[in-house]
Amino acid sequence: MARRDRPSFSLREIVERLGGELLGDGGVRITQIAPLDSAQAHHISFFAHGRYRRQLKDTAAGAVIVGESERDSTPRPRIVCANPYAYFARVTALLNPSQPEIPAGIDPSAAVDESATVAASARIGAHVWIGRNVRIGEGVVLYPNGFLGDDVEIGAGTVLYPNVAVYHGCRIGSRVIVHAGAIIGADGFGLAKEGDKWLKIPQIGAVVIGDDVEIGANTTIDRGALEDTVIEEGVKLDNLIQVAHNVRIGAHTAMAGCTGVAGSAKIGRHCTVGGAASILGHLEIADHVNISTNTLVTKSIAAPGTYTSAMPFSTHEAWLKNAAHLRHLDEMAARIKQLEARLSALEKD
Amino acid sequence: MARRDRPSFSLREIVERLGGELLGDGGVRITQIAPLDSAQAHHISFFAHGRYRRQLKDTAAGAVIVGESERDSTPRPRIVCANPYAYFARVTALLNPSQPEIPAGIDPSAAVDESATVAASARIGAHVWIGRNVRIGEGVVLYPNGFLGDDVEIGAGTVLYPNVAVYHGCRIGSRVIVHAGAIIGADGFGLAKEGDKWLKIPQIGAVVIGDDVEIGANTTIDRGALEDTVIEEGVKLDNLIQVAHNVRIGAHTAMAGCTGVAGSAKIGRHCTVGGAASILGHLEIADHVNISTNTLVTKSIAAPGTYTSAMPFSTHEAWLKNAAHLRHLDEMAARIKQLEARLSALEKD
Amino acid sequence: MARRDRPSFSLREIVERLGGELLGDGGVRITQIAPLDSAQAHHISFFAHGRYRRQLKDTAAGAVIVGESERDSTPRPRIVCANPYAYFARVTALLNPSQPEIPAGIDPSAAVDESATVAASARIGAHVWIGRNVRIGEGVVLYPNGFLGDDVEIGAGTVLYPNVAVYHGCRIGSRVIVHAGAIIGADGFGLAKEGDKWLKIPQIGAVVIGDDVEIGANTTIDRGALEDTVIEEGVKLDNLIQVAHNVRIGAHTAMAGCTGVAGSAKIGRHCTVGGAASILGHLEIADHVNISTNTLVTKSIAAPGTYTSAMPFSTHEAWLKNAAHLRHLDEMAARIKQLEARLSALEKD
Repeated sequence: MARRDRPSFSLREIVERLGGELLGDGGVRITQIAPLDSAQAHHISFFAHGRYRRQLKDTAAGAVIVGESERDSTPRPRIVCANPYAYFARVTALLNPSQPEIPAGIDPSAAVDESATVAASARIGAHVWIGRNVRIGEGVVLYPNGFLGDDVEIGAGTVLYPNVAVYHGCRIGSRVIVHAGAIIGADGFGLAKEGDKWLKIPQIGAVVIGDDVEIGANTTIDRGALEDTVIEEGVKLDNLIQVAHNVRIGAHTAMAGCTGVAGSAKIGRHCTVGGAASILGHLEIADHVNISTNTLVTKSIAAPGTYTSAMPFSTHEAWLKNAAHLRHLDEMAARIKQLEARLSALEKD
Repeated sequence: MARRDRPSFSLREIVERLGGELLGDGGVRITQIAPLDSAQAHHISFFAHGRYRRQLKDTAAGAVIVGESERDSTPRPRIVCANPYAYFARVTALLNPSQPEIPAGIDPSAAVDESATVAASARIGAHVWIGRNVRIGEGVVLYPNGFLGDDVEIGAGTVLYPNVAVYHGCRIGSRVIVHAGAIIGADGFGLAKEGDKWLKIPQIGAVVIGDDVEIGANTTIDRGALEDTVIEEGVKLDNLIQVAHNVRIGAHTAMAGCTGVAGSAKIGRHCTVGGAASILGHLEIADHVNISTNTLVTKSIAAPGTYTSAMPFSTHEAWLKNAAHLRHLDEMAARIKQLEARLSALEKD
Repeated sequence: MARRDRPSFSLREIVERLGGELLGDGGVRITQIAPLDSAQAHHISFFAHGRYRRQLKDTAAGAVIVGESERDSTPRPRIVCANPYAYFARVTALLNPSQPEIPAGIDPSAAVDESATVAASARIGAHVWIGRNVRIGEGVVLYPNGFLGDDVEIGAGTVLYPNVAVYHGCRIGSRVIVHAGAIIGADGFGLAKEGDKWLKIPQIGAVVIGDDVEIGANTTIDRGALEDTVIEEGVKLDNLIQVAHNVRIGAHTAMAGCTGVAGSAKIGRHCTVGGAASILGHLEIADHVNISTNTLVTKSIAAPGTYTSAMPFSTHEAWLKNAAHLRHLDEMAARIKQLEARLSALEKD
């Protein structure tokens, strides 16, 4: 685990800051959060799922976070709250405040165009490149080796980890986190066929990213062809996701790693998309839709719900036997139909 | 949309530069291109697909690009041409000339080995690293934080966006565009089993990239094991594509994002590959083959045409019911066969 | 192929260094390795698979590496050994020693915190950023534009290619190779739902990577939520792989490109995972398991063996006909059952 200096709190101090009901000794000193099965006396743990009831019984944690229906499920000092998993997130943040690695100010090795506006409290790391008319808000942290093209805007409190590139004209909101290696605003894959060659279609839209978005490592979000690619507020994208040009992802939608979204797809608000899913282009997905891992979405989805396509795995031998028939399903269906007709004829006799 | 200075042209000036037949007022002043449904009087738009006929009727565009069979489909000033979509690409380029963000010359913070040859008109950005005997052609633009290993060659007019790494000995042609974060020439995944451990096989081939290729953000193209990995001229690769060692991709083939090509696959010319496809290694794909999105190619394809494997999605409940049977297709086929035999016996009676 | 200075050896000198039995003229001078079909008199080649027997017969190679059962399969000078493919790997390394592109010492443009410990024989390239208390072992090579966050440890002999970012607190073993653009230790995708928004769960674990691991270009390995993500010794990861938080990959497991492993999956030792596979989270895979390309693993695997799920491809027309039935397999199964019942009734008559 990362070894950084951390504050410690009594259980009472935690409740004063984050709310919840304190049961038991409020003087217990907490230095870190830990899972039930490895927690010790100076740890706080949490019980958010029934399958860990055994671990709750056996835990050595100094304190536990529990839901209201579980207020008496442990004799240990505890915090009772409505949403133990969210409380766990808040306690983790309290015990592990982010510690800026990048010193205040603008590193002398950074290349900052004189027309750029950089807020006084921003931290611009070594070897960062900042183009013309770029605007950088208060408290922004740019880790080393980043690139911000001309006219880029970065809202207050946003953090760009190392080696992030933001192409010209893209706008990123406030309190956004962009992990290392993510590329914002590269050209969309726009090609016109001319004879037997491809002609590049210049991509003149940009990327617009709302507040409180998080973007995973090495994820790519392409600029729009004519209009902008838009990631609305609160969207969470995992690593190695590809978002093509003109896509719109609705607010508070979360998408797991390795997923690809093709051009001009419009994804609703409050959706979840499992890992390695593929969403084709020029379609629309309603709000509150859940797409399962590895699922290929080939047409619009109008109703909330969970949607899936995935081939179950088996031993290779079993798969060999079954997969061969996948190429003959149509024939199989025809044979069933024929059997039904023959049988009906026979039954009539 | 990106806010950059742009030229404007009269419709007549556009036709003088790009050809086509002008119908209506050639004095209309055009500053930008826009889709039919949002275009205004200073915009030119284009009509390339019948499903937008309604939008053509209602558009407020100052001018429209149409095909020859559609010369009378709008009363607006228009340019008639053989290929409206290609014409749209050319007009977009005319109205949005690329504006170099990187100043002329070699940035003083770039680390350029003294044995490297850099053409006078090349633009070498900040914090770029250039190794021994590297050769950089006229008009090349290297964005910040790039890396060119020893003996790399970059042809005239090629642009490498930020954070691109080109390993030693790789050769990139002219007018190539490599988007940010792409990695050219990392070691292929070559391992020999020795006992129960893996022994690394040094990868002594390189990557050779032809003229007019475009490579998407964070795409990776591995160097060859013994011989070179080759991307022929005019190939277009989208983002987050993996090209393994010894692969050859034929000229003018286009491949959408998140696709993987395994070692020693040979892909023909003028192919298209949809997103998130997987092409196994040591196989050959003919010219003019189209691989659909999400399709797994497990063996060579000798004939032009479109090839597909993909599981259609459905609601999770419907999927659960159907997917269970995928593990029993062989049994299902056996039962049909048995039914047919029993029915034939019965019919004979 | 990369043009670098290389040593040459007589066949006898090769056997002295790498073992094996020499048959034929030991004075043959070898400068490089090459495949059987393109090798010339100054090349050594290898015969490791029966399908190349024809090429073995026709080869112009100066010498060939063969297995013990093939000692008389060619009249050419040859080295007989137990494992020709592993021998090939060793000869390749002998003939192509790695040539450090990065000069000895610390490049003056690197930003190295004064609290960091850098071994005397380490090579720190241009524009590298090294945080507080970082420890860098003997012989480490850091290519340009790398980032090592606070408290990172890098073991002796490890090479980080350009644009690699290692977040704070992560620990990398000895003789590890990390290819360009790989991101080690970005935040895991940890979110708690609070109302209709996502609350970030700070990720306080790190990433721990064992000795002799190789990590491909643009691969991402996330830090753990509470505990560490662990890549055990000898693991080989290809390009564009996503490893989520809290995953453990057992020693000497190899994984091909574009694969994703979801959170808290535990993968055994000596496994192989084909490209573009997806492994769901919170499951366990035994030692010596092979997962095929494109396979989705949805639950734990307790026994060694090969496991597969993949949809075979066909022409688009054939696929259209067959795929439609995938949404009706349950109905198809019901109709078969009904046919069986009706037929049994009829047979009883």
